[in-house]
Amino acid sequence: TGCLGMSQALGVLTIILTLVWTCYYRGGFAWHDDVAHEFNYHPLFMILGLVFFYAEAILVYRVFRNVKKLYVKLLHASLHFLAIIFVIVALKAVFDSHNLAKPTPHPNLYSLHSWLGLSVVLLFGLQYVSGFVSFLFPKLSLALRQWYMPTHVFFGIAIFLGAIATALMGLTEKLLFLRGDMSTFRTAEGTFINILGLLLVAFAGLVIYLVIN
Amino acid sequence: TGCLGMSQALGVLTIILTLVWTCYYRGGFAWHDDVAHEFNYHPLFMILGLVFFYAEAILVYRVFRNVKKLYVKLLHASLHFLAIIFVIVALKAVFDSHNLAKPTPHPNLYSLHSWLGLSVVLLFGLQYVSGFVSFLFPKLSLALRQWYMPTHVFFGIAIFLGAIATALMGLTEKLLFLRGDMSTFRTAEGTFINILGLLLVAFAGLVIYLVIN
Ligand code: HEM
Ligand code: HEM
Ligand code: HEM
Ligand code: HEM
Ligand SMILES: O=C1O[C@H]([C@@H](O)CO)C(O)=C1O
Repeated sequence: TGCLGMSQALGVLTIILTLVWTCYYRGGFAWHDDVAHEFNYHPLFMILGLVFFYAEAILVYRVFRNVKKLYVKLLHASLHFLAIIFVIVALKAVFDSHNLAKPTPHPNLYSLHSWLGLSVVLLFGLQYVSGFVSFLFPKLSLALRQWYMPTHVFFGIAIFLGAIATALMGLTEKLLFLRGDMSTFRTAEGTFINILGLLLVAFAGLVIYLVIN
Repeated sequence: TGCLGMSQALGVLTIILTLVWTCYYRGGFAWHDDVAHEFNYHPLFMILGLVFFYAEAILVYRVFRNVKKLYVKLLHASLHFLAIIFVIVALKAVFDSHNLAKPTPHPNLYSLHSWLGLSVVLLFGLQYVSGFVSFLFPKLSLALRQWYMPTHVFFGIAIFLGAIATALMGLTEKLLFLRGDMSTFRTAEGTFINILGLLLVAFAGLVIYLVIN
């Protein structure tokens, strides 16, 4: 339980740093009329959805050990649903920031970040549908559920780690092309981002430790 | 065993792609007299050491199930030792490429990639010493070894995944500052790197799957 408290503290701190970064260093949020700031929803909502709420969703089975299983499942599914909503808005924000860029649109899906990121999102969608169908409704036979469970847990963890790796590449890219070279790394903002990156890694390590124990 | 064969195929393919990238796209290797090409030892040897030989080292317990445990331990420790040698040369190459750069040296250790990378290397060294002392010589009591084992396996896997994430950031950075923007991603070299990146992820997924099963 000390570890659980620690994971929650790291999770909240991650979100606070992401907010400070997007608001203070990156100038906050806007929508279609200012796509450079619409972009800022992308890192914030990806980290909120695919890191924070995703982690909360996979921790519920550890936290609510004595609660009726159906209720915990509903919470697990709801938190993942919340995560999916944030991910969809985060994707919309980044695609808009490319497609609606002035004077000409930017191309889409060329970077390693975007390839891995889109794969992670697609696997997340697949995992949601198969988890829902298997464990909630219409619910498979006990034998099939037992057979699928280890796969569900393995991919559940793999998608989470894929999201962390994607986020680290995203942070690196964004800093790099603020000035077109590595010099942004040697500013207060750069140090800030490095700390946020290490925090994401520490949070992920702790969450996985809790999930497998 | 189908999965084992597949993991070996992916591992070898990863090394081939890294070689093709460093030799063909990045112009091959040199030492102190040409630090821009000395740099190329960095990605090649990091991927050889911290990805390929590291993976081979943690797979030996799965491959040699019927071999005397002491021999398998010696192989595990030797492959990790080989990995460490490559890592040290890889570090030397990248620090040289900064410190000996003309006309002026580049600064060190500013990026998220370098912070996470150095942490991974330090943890790798710690893990080596504690694994050696606990399981090989002088060897701890059975009780202590049993107590330490889950931690050894957890950190063994965590360091590997940290290395993969570091490599993905490294590839992203290198492509980005070849031209100072994202346009290198939209070249044959960019697509090549994206494929190498996804291959690293697939290889890691398969290796971890094998290790935990
Ligand atoms: C963690 C989950 C994340 C996922 C799944 C993800 C996914 C994606 C995808 C699919 C794209 C392609 C959009 C397009 O081509 O129009 C993209 C672009 C981008 N993302 Fe993320 N992202 C994540 C986190 C982040 C974070 C934390 C940052 C930090 C700033 C970031 C920065 C960027 C940038 C700068 C681009 C545009 C350049 C590019 O396509 O690589 N991303 N992201
Ligand atoms: C994208 C969506 C999902 C992801 C990423 C995901 C991920 C995970 C992970 C990582 C675990 C392991 C947690 C642990 O052992 O503490 C887990 C367990 C589980 N999930 Fe999901 N899941 C998803 C959707 C669903 C859905 C929709 C259901 C339907 C109710 C579901 C049902 C379960 C069940 C029953 C367990 C087993 C808990 C246990 O007995 O320990 N999952 N899931
Ligand atoms: C996978 C294990 C890896 C580790 C542990 C690692 C570690 C490091 C470290 C510690 C530095 C800092 C050197 C300095 O400040 O002088 C560095 C720099 C660098 N690495 Fe890696 N690296 C890895 C893989 C890669 C790969 C695959 C590439 C791809 C090209 C790469 C590209 C770079 C670049 C461009 C730099 C200089 C810019 C910077 O400091 O971020 N690295 N690496
Ligand atoms: C940096 C160095 C090391 C790393 C990264 C590492 C990593 C790992 C990993 C991931 C496993 C799990 C493998 C599996 O379950 O198949 C493992 C198992 C093990 N390691 Fe290490 N190890 C290192 C050094 C050592 C050393 C020096 C020894 C001394 C002999 C050692 C002894 C063992 C033993 C006895 C096991 C248990 C295998 C089993 O019974 O399944 N390790 N190590
Ligand atoms: O619906 C469920 O499936 C699994 C188990 O029955 C199969 O492993 C589980 O814990 C549930 O609550």
